Amino acid sequence: MKMIDGGVCAAKGFKAGGVHCGIRKNREKKDLAMILSETRAAAAAVYTTNLVKGAPIAITKENLRDGYARDVICNSGNANTCNADGPAVARKMCDLAADALKIDPGDMIIASTGVIGQPLNVDAIADGIGPLLQSLRRDGSADAAEGIMTTDTVRKEIAVQFDIGGVPCVIGGIAKGSGMIHPNMATMLVFITSDVAIAPDMLQKALSTDIASTFNMLSIDGDTSTNDMCACMANGMAGNRMITGEGEDFAAFMQALNTVTVHLCRAIAADGEGATKLLECRVSGADSLMTARTVAKSVVCSSLLKAAMFGADANWGRVLCAIGYSGAHVDVNRVDVAFQSAAGLIGVCRDGAGLPFSEDEAKKILSEKEIDILVSLNAGPCEATAWGCDLTYDYVRINGDYRT
Amino acid sequence: MKMIDGGVCAAKGFKAGGVHCGIRKNREKKDLAMILSETRAAAAAVYTTNLVKGAPIAITKENLRDGYARDVICNSGNANTCNADGPAVARKMCDLAADALKIDPGDMIIASTGVIGQPLNVDAIADGIGPLLQSLRRDGSADAAEGIMTTDTVRKEIAVQFDIGGVPCVIGGIAKGSGMIHPNMATMLVFITSDVAIAPDMLQKALSTDIASTFNMLSIDGDTSTNDMCACMANGMAGNRMITGEGEDFAAFMQALNTVTVHLCRAIAADGEGATKLLECRVSGADSLMTARTVAKSVVCSSLLKAAMFGADANWGRVLCAIGYSGAHVDVNRVDVAFQSAAGLIGVCRDGAGLPFSEDEAKKILSEKEIDILVSLNAGPCEATAWGCDLTYDYVRINGDYRT
Repeated sequence: MKMIDGGVCAAKGFKAGGVHCGIRKNREKKDLAMILSETRAAAAAVYTTNLVKGAPIAITKENLRDGYARDVICNSGNANTCNADGPAVARKMCDLAADALKIDPGDMIIASTGVIGQPLNVDAIADGIGPLLQSLRRDGSADAAEGIMTTDTVRKEIAVQFDIGGVPCVIGGIAKGSGMIHPNMATMLVFITSDVAIAPDMLQKALSTDIASTFNMLSIDGDTSTNDMCACMANGMAGNRMITGEGEDFAAFMQALNTVTVHLCRAIAADGEGATKLLECRVSGADSLMTARTVAKSVVCSSLLKAAMFGADANWGRVLCAIGYSGAHVDVNRVDVAFQSAAGLIGVCRDGAGLPFSEDEAKKILSEKEIDILVSLNAGPCEATAWGCDLTYDYVRINGDYRT
Repeated sequence: MKMIDGGVCAAKGFKAGGVHCGIRKNREKKDLAMILSETRAAAAAVYTTNLVKGAPIAITKENLRDGYARDVICNSGNANTCNADGPAVARKMCDLAADALKIDPGDMIIASTGVIGQPLNVDAIADGIGPLLQSLRRDGSADAAEGIMTTDTVRKEIAVQFDIGGVPCVIGGIAKGSGMIHPNMATMLVFITSDVAIAPDMLQKALSTDIASTFNMLSIDGDTSTNDMCACMANGMAGNRMITGEGEDFAAFMQALNTVTVHLCRAIAADGEGATKLLECRVSGADSLMTARTVAKSVVCSSLLKAAMFGADANWGRVLCAIGYSGAHVDVNRVDVAFQSAAGLIGVCRDGAGLPFSEDEAKKILSEKEIDILVSLNAGPCEATAWGCDLTYDYVRINGDYRT
C-alpha cells in the first residue's frame, strides 16, 4: 500500500469541485462542494446519533437505502438544522443538484455543516449549482475539501493505492472537523471514494466496522454534532473481482480503508478548534476491547488533561482521574502511565503511584506537536487508541462568538 | 427560615479554624482546616464514585460506619491520591488530630484536596496540629472555609436558622470547588454542621436524597474528582425532639438542608475555575425526573455552550445539540428555549426551531453574571435544575500549569 495524491479524485472515475455560492459572508471561502462518480457506485454511510439531526441526514439515509449513489453535494456555513423549513430546503438542494447533473435524485448524498438554527438560503445554492458543476475536475479534491471546511484551518485529504487480487485499487477521502466532535457513530463530515468493486452490504460492513476503532475514538470537545456523517462511494472501476463476502480481498480493502480513516482522524484531531497539539492515547493490557476503548476515550476527553497538555504539564494524576471515572472496571493500582513524543519517552506512574521523573525532560517531551499518552492496565491482551487535542485559549475564543 | 452568619459555627456547639502549615508554598494561604463539635454528632457522608480515590476517603468511610463523628480535619494543596504511602499518611493525619484532641480516632472525618500523585508531607501536618487547635473559635468558620480552598477565588459559607417543632435549629456549611467537578455522588468538598437532633440513618437519608438534586446537578468541567466528599455532622444541641423517621420534622430539616446545599452549589458554580458567569439550566415539562435531570446536566456540561455563554452569544443551537445527545428520550420538535437574567428574558427557540429575536437584547441579557437557560420539553410535569459556569480563557490558563 502506498500514499498517493488526489484525495477523493485519486480513484478512477471521480471528479470533485468547490465554489463560493454566498452562504458564507467571506467570499474568499468556498461554501459548496461536490464529488461525482462517473458511474453509479455502491454507497454506505454512518450518521450522528444525536436526536437533533440536520435535515439533510434524513434525505441521505432515504437515498442510500438501495445501497447506491453517484454524487455528494455538501455546503458549509449553515447546518440546516433546527429550521422549520429545513426538510424542504434539503430536498430542494438534492433536487437542484440531481436536475443539473441529470441523475436520479435518489442517487444523491447531501450534507450541510455550520451554524444551527438559522435558515439556509437555498437561492444561494440554486445560483451556485452551475458554477459548482463547472468546477468539477479530476484534480478537484482540494477544492471540495475546502468547500466543506468550517472552523478548520487546514484541508484534510488522503489517498492510498493497494492491490486486490493483483488489481491496483485506490481509496481516497476528505474530511472536515473541527468542533462539536465526540465519538458517537460518525463524528464529523467524511467523504470517501474508491474504485473498488464491492457489494453495498460489504461496503456498509467495512465502514461500520472501521469507524468503531477510528472516528468513534476521536473527540475534540465532547459535543456530538447534529450533522455528522461519514459516507463512502465505491464505483467498481478498478476492475477487481467484486467483493461479495469476507476473505482476502475484503481484508485488503479493510486495511486500506483503515489507513485512510486513521489518517483523517489524526488530521481532524490535530486541527481541533484552537488545538496546538494532537493527543493520541494508546491503552494496552486491557481485559476487553470495550475497557480499552472506554479508558482511551475518557483520557482524551478530560478537559483538565487537555488543558495540562496545552501547558506541557506532566500532570499524570489527571490521566489516572480520567481512567477512574471512565466507567470501565479497572484495577487502578496496576495502572502504568508514560508520555511519549518525538523528543522521547518518560514513565510517570507505575502501579497507580508516581515515579520520580525529570520535570525538564517531561516538559521537553510535552512541548512537541504530537503527544502519545501510553496507558498500560496490566490486566489482559486488549488495546485501543483514541485521538484528541489540547484545550487552548483559542478554543474559547473561537467558540465564544462563533456565529458572528 | 432565615439566613444567618457564622457558617459551620452557626449551629450550637461547633468551633472551627484554619492555619498555614506548609503544604502550600504560599504562606499567605491557609492549607489546614478543622471543624470540631463539642459533643459526639450523628454523621453522614457521600463520596466520589471515581475508582481512583484519595486515601482519606477510605478512612472516613470506615470511621463513619457507626454513624457518629466529632471532628473534621482537611488539608488543601495536596490530594494524597495515587501515592504509595497515601493510606499510611492519611491514617497518621487522622491519629495526629485525634491524639491532640484527645478523642477516638474513629470519630474523625478526614479529607485532602489538591494535586494528585505527589507525596503529602505529613510532618507539615504534625507541626500544624498545635496551631490548628489554637485557631479553633466560635467565629472560625471563615478560617476553615479558607483552609480548604484550592483554585477557589472566594470562600463559600452559609448558615440558616429554622424551626423544628417550635425549637430554633441551625444548619451551616462550607464548600470548596472549583475544578474537577462533575456530577457523580458528591462532587467537591462540602462540610455541613447542624445542632439538630437526628438519628444517623435519617441524616444519611436526608443527605443522600438531597444531593441528587443539588451537588449531583453541578458540573464545572466534566471531570469527576478523586477526592470529593460531602460530610455532615448534627450534634443535637438544639434540643429538638430527636428525628428518627419521616414526617414534619424531617421535612423541615430537609428543606433547610436544601437551602444550604443549593446555596453552596451556586457558589461553587459561580466560582468555577476561570468562570465569569453562573449558568443555571432549568428544565420543565419533562416526562420523568430522570429525563429532566439528564437534559439539564447535558446542557450545563456542553463545552460549546459554555464558551458561547462566555462570549454572550445566544447560540441556542448548542442547547438543542446538547439536549439531542444527552441520552434522554426527548421529542426535539417540541422543545422551547429561552435565556433569562437580571436584564430580562428572551425566547429563542419554539418547537425545536428558531424564533426571531433581537441580537442586541440577547447580548444584554447574556452579559449578566447569572444566566438562566430555560428549557421546556412540553412532554410532562417533571422538572430539574443544573448548575455550571462558562468556559473561559482563564480555565485554560489555570489548568495549563496547575502544578507549578
